Amino acid sequence: MTKPIDFYFDFSSPYGYLASTRIEAIAKKHQRDVVWHPILLGAIFKVTGQAPLTTYPLRGDYAVHDFARAAREHNTPFKQPEPFPIGTVAASRACCWIKANEHALPTLSDFVHGTFKAYYVDGKDISQVDEVLAVAEAVGLDRNDLKTALADQTIKDALRIAIEKAIEGGIFGSPITVVDGERFWGNDRLEQVDRWLSRGGW
Amino acid sequence: MTKPIDFYFDFSSPYGYLASTRIEAIAKKHQRDVVWHPILLGAIFKVTGQAPLTTYPLRGDYAVHDFARAAREHNTPFKQPEPFPIGTVAASRACCWIKANEHALPTLSDFVHGTFKAYYVDGKDISQVDEVLAVAEAVGLDRNDLKTALADQTIKDALRIAIEKAIEGGIFGSPITVVDGERFWGNDRLEQVDRWLSRGGW
Repeated sequence: MTKPIDFYFDFSSPYGYLASTRIEAIAKKHQRDVVWHPILLGAIFKVTGQAPLTTYPLRGDYAVHDFARAAREHNTPFKQPEPFPIGTVAASRACCWIKANEHALPTLSDFVHGTFKAYYVDGKDISQVDEVLAVAEAVGLDRNDLKTALADQTIKDALRIAIEKAIEGGIFGSPITVVDGERFWGNDRLEQVDRWLSRGGW
Repeated sequence: MTKPIDFYFDFSSPYGYLASTRIEAIAKKHQRDVVWHPILLGAIFKVTGQAPLTTYPLRGDYAVHDFARAAREHNTPFKQPEPFPIGTVAASRACCWIKANEHALPTLSDFVHGTFKAYYVDGKDISQVDEVLAVAEAVGLDRNDLKTALADQTIKDALRIAIEKAIEGGIFGSPITVVDGERFWGNDRLEQVDRWLSRGGW
């Protein structure tokens, strides 16, 4: 295995969800692992001066249309959720807790996919801790351990520090795929990521 | 020939330039014509509340890196111009004048490519009327006729009305490719445009 692919996403980002369903197949094709990095766009937008995509006149309508169209292209189940966008701090902290626990780590990918599915397929409001705990339980994690961990300052700090590091590394949106130091922003860049890996860059 | 492909762009948009070098080949592959629609992002950003891409922290640095990387992928000549971004009202009005003139119309594509090349390859400041006139002359247009037309209220109005119509039609960025009523935003969507045309939508 060569260097893994770093995949940055916000659980509230439709393009993050869509890309999450395809990134592992692309990585596998090139003998790479995927490292999941949940981020909070709210914290990032404070630095970049942006607002949620769907709040912009014209661009917002296009985005909502495009989310569904991009999903249909790859037959990815997708239902525009309500409420949207939402805060995803609980789900993101849960990832930090999983990363910090050797025994839980093999379930991280399942938890990421399960959380995205809960929101974008099953219409669950994953801003709510109970919904996050339900996903965790479904992938074999201990509900009570996670519940305790979500209130733990170490886990809160871990997410904050991870996001600060991401911003320092030039992460400004969701999804951003980092391959050998090159950032690729957007679900619509996955084909380019695939070509980059095939050609070894250009 | 079925319905043409509408290609909206600002001459100051690097992704507009990059896409302009590839859109005709994609259109031809699917027996389509390309209709060129210059717009002014300054007017559009007033509606959408955006600013030029390169002025955003983090996103701006990424964009400058990505312009060159996207150009390299397709071996497209590209040099990040200075000054950047620029006002492209003269070049856009020139397109309106060409569109209004039956005899000039066959040169529209040449003029669009020539203007983009002047800015992104030869480093000419195409915000200046003289540079626009030089491109026009090089593609066989009458320099003096165009010079007169650029001050003509009818031509000024034609561009203003065209941009208002574009905004009404949901055009909010550059480039936007419209195929059978579907908008595709970005140079990085040309592959998707190609797939859309191949599959007849999805």
